Amino acid sequence: MKAAVFIEPGKVEVKELAKPTLEKPTDAIIRIVRASVCGSDLWWFRGISHRDANTTVGHEAIGIIEAVGSEVTAVKPGDFVIAPFTHGCGHCAACLAGFDGDCLNQEPGINGGYQGQYLRFPNANWALIKIPGHPSDYSDAVLNSLVTLADVMATGYHAAASAEVKSGDTVVVMGDGAVGLCGVIAAKLRGAKRIIAMSRHADRQALAKEFGATDIVAERGQAAVDKVKALTDGVGVDAVLECVGTAQSVDTAVQVGRPGAIVGRVGVPQKAEMNTNQLFWQNIGLRGGVASVTTYDKTVLLKAVLTGQINPGKVFTQRFDLDHIQDAYDAMDQRLAIKSLVVISD
Amino acid sequence: MKAAVFIEPGKVEVKELAKPTLEKPTDAIIRIVRASVCGSDLWWFRGISHRDANTTVGHEAIGIIEAVGSEVTAVKPGDFVIAPFTHGCGHCAACLAGFDGDCLNQEPGINGGYQGQYLRFPNANWALIKIPGHPSDYSDAVLNSLVTLADVMATGYHAAASAEVKSGDTVVVMGDGAVGLCGVIAAKLRGAKRIIAMSRHADRQALAKEFGATDIVAERGQAAVDKVKALTDGVGVDAVLECVGTAQSVDTAVQVGRPGAIVGRVGVPQKAEMNTNQLFWQNIGLRGGVASVTTYDKTVLLKAVLTGQINPGKVFTQRFDLDHIQDAYDAMDQRLAIKSLVVISD
Repeated sequence: MKAAVFIEPGKVEVKELAKPTLEKPTDAIIRIVRASVCGSDLWWFRGISHRDANTTVGHEAIGIIEAVGSEVTAVKPGDFVIAPFTHGCGHCAACLAGFDGDCLNQEPGINGGYQGQYLRFPNANWALIKIPGHPSDYSDAVLNSLVTLADVMATGYHAAASAEVKSGDTVVVMGDGAVGLCGVIAAKLRGAKRIIAMSRHADRQALAKEFGATDIVAERGQAAVDKVKALTDGVGVDAVLECVGTAQSVDTAVQVGRPGAIVGRVGVPQKAEMNTNQLFWQNIGLRGGVASVTTYDKTVLLKAVLTGQINPGKVFTQRFDLDHIQDAYDAMDQRLAIKSLVVISD
Repeated sequence: MKAAVFIEPGKVEVKELAKPTLEKPTDAIIRIVRASVCGSDLWWFRGISHRDANTTVGHEAIGIIEAVGSEVTAVKPGDFVIAPFTHGCGHCAACLAGFDGDCLNQEPGINGGYQGQYLRFPNANWALIKIPGHPSDYSDAVLNSLVTLADVMATGYHAAASAEVKSGDTVVVMGDGAVGLCGVIAAKLRGAKRIIAMSRHADRQALAKEFGATDIVAERGQAAVDKVKALTDGVGVDAVLECVGTAQSVDTAVQVGRPGAIVGRVGVPQKAEMNTNQLFWQNIGLRGGVASVTTYDKTVLLKAVLTGQINPGKVFTQRFDLDHIQDAYDAMDQRLAIKSLVVISD
């Protein structure tokens, strides 16, 4: 089979690899229909984080079940599924508490392989989300939205859920990447009445507004804090979605909240040390981490996509086939695409 | 009137001062009935934090309204009230969101004076909590419990509320001072089924158990983490109440939570910088700060005391009159008392 492989920073290649096989009774083999490139892939693509050469890549996809292990009863060959980047078992304390992104029974070293023709997927029985029907039943737009349920839409939702966004809230969303834009969708879905998107790119500002942003703040740092305060009678907002992860973004996120606000962060933190006293003296909460993809998809997001309530697939502004995987990465690396879709099979 | 005054580290004195008068239409003058010494008073008493010499001290009391300003309609002279250490206006964004400890309309510099015969109390209309009847209607035990509603019981409750303790939860309480012990009460009041109290003093362990603790962990640091993990099938707890504030306590608090747990902290943080990556990768939340005293008293705590559901006044293990204020501080400083009561008038 063909699959994308990391060669060195700045370079990915499609190689011919052995088709994966069932290794555990809890596995499924999935024929990938559509995959995508994630902003977090750029960390190793740019050489900022380490990745071993010759490892398969990608962690977002939808596909068709090809085979299942003996303990997998919830899905069967032929089923159309979302393949999340997380692999919740569904029965550990973390999964039961709704934090399947931190499942205590995840297989170590599972990290990639979704940008290829076939994928071995551990903990398939609970973690996979069955989509009714088959790919041919859905429009191109809906298929794209379904791909986002493997990661970015669920991650944006995790920012909003962690920040405890509720009906009537005023919210700031830090970050105008695909996750931040999905954070805007999530805030609206949870009933926010005012959504302030932090963005300095016209195309992303436009998409943020289409998704439900009511205000755009292009400033950064203290100027951004001042602007948000000016928009909120000097008070700050009820909830903050931090979808970047840089020290500056986290710092701004903490400062734009009113007393008692929660910062829900899903941007992988670039700086570990943080002054948490500013949190304490304003009762600002800090929550977030790896998204509960399966939980959100099963309870909220799949239905919202299938009913047309949300259209997160609009974050895909460029489309590639597997043979052009290098172009898919380059487009995101050079900010030519908000997010790159990779169409692999029908 | 007589009031306790800070002289120098280790020394407080009762002095004759002018009786306070109404300065604003939102003020009340309160004749203090009972006051108390707080663990946080020990910071300046021990010279660890700065306090100006000759300032009045104390921030927990119950008393009788002596006079009210023209805009105060919710209480009137003769009313029996709890005087919280916070002064929520009741109508700013922070108060409306339930965070009156961070009221945006608090008068700067209000910090002390409750350990005296009379007190000027700003924002009296909303912040004070009216107690039905008069002091003579209540037992000594209930009067003591009412004193704790000015700070420590509400602060312990804030730890539990910030940690989002809910029915059936397993909870760790860090700290066996009066606030930590009130945290045990609060966790039980919110329905926790298992409460692990961190304590190494026999008298405090006994009181923690009386208040609802089901397990005691006397270890500290990694040994404490290991013990909690052993008590919870290796998983960690649903919620953590951090009622100490030292770097070690906060670090332990973060490590004993299961994925998705929230650390509700009310211990004044002794170290600002903190590695927050460990929070992110386990979805551990960090919340807390200054307690919403008036909100909790009005909605939950006053009723719980008056119906006998909770008895936080048991934290007072020694009693003094105002003339023996030095002894009241010494008893807490030397850990001879869990908390010192100061009886000022009938």
